[in-house]
Amino acid sequence: MADKPIKEKIYEVIFEADTITGKVFDIILLVAIILSVVIVMLDSVDGLVQKYGILFTIIEWILTILFTIEYFLRIYSVKKPLKYIFSFYGIIDLLSILPTYIGLFLAGGHYLMIIRILRLLRVFRVLKLARYVTAARSLGAALSSSKAKIIVFLEVVISVVIILGSIMYLVEGPENGFTSIPVSIYWAIVTITTVGYGDIAPQTVTGQLLASVLMIIGYAIIAVPTGIISSEMIRGSGQKGKTSRICQNCMFEDHDLDAKYCKKCGGKL
Amino acid sequence: MADKPIKEKIYEVIFEADTITGKVFDIILLVAIILSVVIVMLDSVDGLVQKYGILFTIIEWILTILFTIEYFLRIYSVKKPLKYIFSFYGIIDLLSILPTYIGLFLAGGHYLMIIRILRLLRVFRVLKLARYVTAARSLGAALSSSKAKIIVFLEVVISVVIILGSIMYLVEGPENGFTSIPVSIYWAIVTITTVGYGDIAPQTVTGQLLASVLMIIGYAIIAVPTGIISSEMIRGSGQKGKTSRICQNCMFEDHDLDAKYCKKCGGKL
Amino acid sequence: MADKPIKEKIYEVIFEADTITGKVFDIILLVAIILSVVIVMLDSVDGLVQKYGILFTIIEWILTILFTIEYFLRIYSVKKPLKYIFSFYGIIDLLSILPTYIGLFLAGGHYLMIIRILRLLRVFRVLKLARYVTAARSLGAALSSSKAKIIVFLEVVISVVIILGSIMYLVEGPENGFTSIPVSIYWAIVTITTVGYGDIAPQTVTGQLLASVLMIIGYAIIAVPTGIISSEMIRGSGQKGKTSRICQNCMFEDHDLDAKYCKKCGGKL
Amino acid sequence: MADKPIKEKIYEVIFEADTITGKVFDIILLVAIILSVVIVMLDSVDGLVQKYGILFTIIEWILTILFTIEYFLRIYSVKKPLKYIFSFYGIIDLLSILPTYIGLFLAGGHYLMIIRILRLLRVFRVLKLARYVTAARSLGAALSSSKAKIIVFLEVVISVVIILGSIMYLVEGPENGFTSIPVSIYWAIVTITTVGYGDIAPQTVTGQLLASVLMIIGYAIIAVPTGIISSEMIRGSGQKGKTSRICQNCMFEDHDLDAKYCKKCGGKL
Repeated sequence: MADKPIKEKIYEVIFEADTITGKVFDIILLVAIILSVVIVMLDSVDGLVQKYGILFTIIEWILTILFTIEYFLRIYSVKKPLKYIFSFYGIIDLLSILPTYIGLFLAGGHYLMIIRILRLLRVFRVLKLARYVTAARSLGAALSSSKAKIIVFLEVVISVVIILGSIMYLVEGPENGFTSIPVSIYWAIVTITTVGYGDIAPQTVTGQLLASVLMIIGYAIIAVPTGIISSEMIRGSGQKGKTSRICQNCMFEDHDLDAKYCKKCGGKL
Repeated sequence: MADKPIKEKIYEVIFEADTITGKVFDIILLVAIILSVVIVMLDSVDGLVQKYGILFTIIEWILTILFTIEYFLRIYSVKKPLKYIFSFYGIIDLLSILPTYIGLFLAGGHYLMIIRILRLLRVFRVLKLARYVTAARSLGAALSSSKAKIIVFLEVVISVVIILGSIMYLVEGPENGFTSIPVSIYWAIVTITTVGYGDIAPQTVTGQLLASVLMIIGYAIIAVPTGIISSEMIRGSGQKGKTSRICQNCMFEDHDLDAKYCKKCGGKL
Repeated sequence: MADKPIKEKIYEVIFEADTITGKVFDIILLVAIILSVVIVMLDSVDGLVQKYGILFTIIEWILTILFTIEYFLRIYSVKKPLKYIFSFYGIIDLLSILPTYIGLFLAGGHYLMIIRILRLLRVFRVLKLARYVTAARSLGAALSSSKAKIIVFLEVVISVVIILGSIMYLVEGPENGFTSIPVSIYWAIVTITTVGYGDIAPQTVTGQLLASVLMIIGYAIIAVPTGIISSEMIRGSGQKGKTSRICQNCMFEDHDLDAKYCKKCGGKL
Repeated sequence: MADKPIKEKIYEVIFEADTITGKVFDIILLVAIILSVVIVMLDSVDGLVQKYGILFTIIEWILTILFTIEYFLRIYSVKKPLKYIFSFYGIIDLLSILPTYIGLFLAGGHYLMIIRILRLLRVFRVLKLARYVTAARSLGAALSSSKAKIIVFLEVVISVVIILGSIMYLVEGPENGFTSIPVSIYWAIVTITTVGYGDIAPQTVTGQLLASVLMIIGYAIIAVPTGIISSEMIRGSGQKGKTSRICQNCMFEDHDLDAKYCKKCGGKL
């Protein structure tokens, strides 16, 4: 006896969230993930590193070792290890322990540890919030079904910024901060998205005129992706409220999800 | 005679807005609130404090004492004092008189008085504008029913700014103003929301490329919350298209305008 | 003979746009308006004033005198002069000639002449573009029917900027550019609307954290007015595409504008 | 034999994308276009020009000569040369070879070569992605059917920026960066579109108050074009809900999904 039950027990604790031990494990895991992300952030703040630098390094290593153990336990306990290793979560799990080791050889490499934030996606599984999954899925569906329109839209935006950016390079020139066409295109993106840092800004009258045109274009076409997504979502939410049942009496189809009788002829559904 | 009628009279004047005295009281109250908020604002302007500082302090204290009296009269006159004290308005009423007293011990504390602005929410009650309440409620309903989607959306936004902010820290480094990961994340938020102060801006080519990606993401995904709210609102306003007929058989209320038979029990409408 | 016909002729030329002389008059008028607006703009450019200042003044006066004559001819020829004087267009016509005269006594007063731009609204009447009027009306209807929601929305925005602006004053203080509460509120408006000049920007960690919250609020709630207007417009456009005709055969009501036969029973409409 | 078949063969290779040689030609063409656009961009970067300037010029000339040959082959092989020359693609093809030659006489002229980017629109034909064309067409339809409303909207925006820009010139004056009315109008556009460079920013209290108003207007009215486009798109996607049945009587096509009789002639569907 023994080997298989232990494997199964580990599987239950690590992968499932229905048992108490599984839930406790998941919550500890989430806290550890958040802690490690916060440590990475604080590790980059000058004043704090000088004071707590050694403490940060110690915590980083403890957490990384724990995550490494957890990673190998996952591989050990799962039925199809290869499938897990190459799954979305498997890759993220691996990517989130590698940076600390890379940091040994490559200065700054351990900052990549920030990718651990992606492990927080597990939170949805822990909290068992099915409606968040539904929400995410319906958002994804709306985005995916409007993919073609969004690509066309992006192509137009990119063409506009390339062409207007190049013209601005000719109009303003390096002496006004438009040092090259790539920089001018960068400026055009900053402008059309209405971000507007102001590190580069047109100085000549023609330049300001062109910039105004670009701004108004940017201001107006933001309506396009919004319209695309809105209409997809409305269509999506409209389809959800409907059942696909057909009245056997009068063949009327457009019944609500909660309908028990046909609203046209009164026949039972 | 006497005790109860007085209590009731006070109640009528302070809490109700149907009688003339009640209306007059409410309008005086609103003017006093606005006056006290304006005083707090002006009290922070250097030039004015030197000139009118004492006047401001006097008005502040007079208004605070009046609001304190009003607060205790409310407690005295209401039937269930505890329920009022811990109600939404009760807490705001308390919070809006405390700061002046706190200001005696804690410099700057009286600025918290600005919270009095929240008392202006009473204006809706005074103006008896039922449709504003309806409007607020329908906005609230749309927001609340799209809560799950908005949380998913915010999680995505936060993940993007944390990851891209960290990468920017590695790419640009402290010498270009990205002094730490938290600062870089702050920059990423400034960029993805299209605010773009420009106090921190990428200087390297890779940095500007990444910033461009972030801007276009920000520009495009603004469409997502907009789509969410729009579709919720349309669904909400669509429900107004329902008939008010009630099935006499099963008392079900939510019939479509073109329904001829109850969709719950099949009875004729 | 004479007096009345002349009055009528003037009326036809000035007020109507169906006759050839009326159309010519209107087009000349539009050109004159645009010219006078351009002159006012150029009149403020330093380099140009030194060169062409006198020319600008002469054109300004000629146009003003012509507009004054036109104004009095309008009063003379119209049937109910008082009604015209106090109408929307009448007031604009008056306001657009006054500034030049005011400029005689008050330096800079003639810049107010820019209000002449409003006279361009007449262009719609001249071009007889009924569909622009329809478009404007349907936009206006959508805005007006969502008035209550927009006011509630603005109240929330204003409360947020006042409260967060005041807190920022306490957090950042005058040494970081937040010199007073009104200035901090101004900064909060610049931030929540995602304009982000960057002339004032938070320097402390707490300040940047609060600013991030404000930005994300601003980024998210832009969805609210958009949702309001979208849902109103969709409701509005839905109603327009329908006729109010009822099938006399089966009493079905929901016919399209271009329908000639009932789509339920085939009866003629 | 000979002349015509060669002409036809060239036509097949250059204009069509169904044969293998045609596809290969199109892909080489796309790569060449992208290469030439990238070269133009890099050609403007100071550091790179000094190193690779001659290389860039050589590639530019080789590509231009190839494009020129291709252009004349197109004219030669097409059946109606004049129709091609004055078609949309024909003009773009010409415009994209001219700049290099112009650059011989006019410094900087060769930057106009960037217009070659428009040739990338051919990519859709190459990839045979019919659904992108459909997407582009449905976007175009939504934009075109809301043209009147968008023009009215732009007129309002332009009036607001002209009037508020002029007032700001009077309020702030040249000493705060508002050097002339055109510059102030430029600032107003930067502000109302929420770009906010910050190169010009109001300094006086009145100016900041007016700027706040302008920002809130800009923040609120972005909802208007969004609402317009959204409602058009929803209407557009609603039309997809139409059936494809055609009335056998009058050939009318645009029937609703639930229609039983043709709404034009009353014939049964």
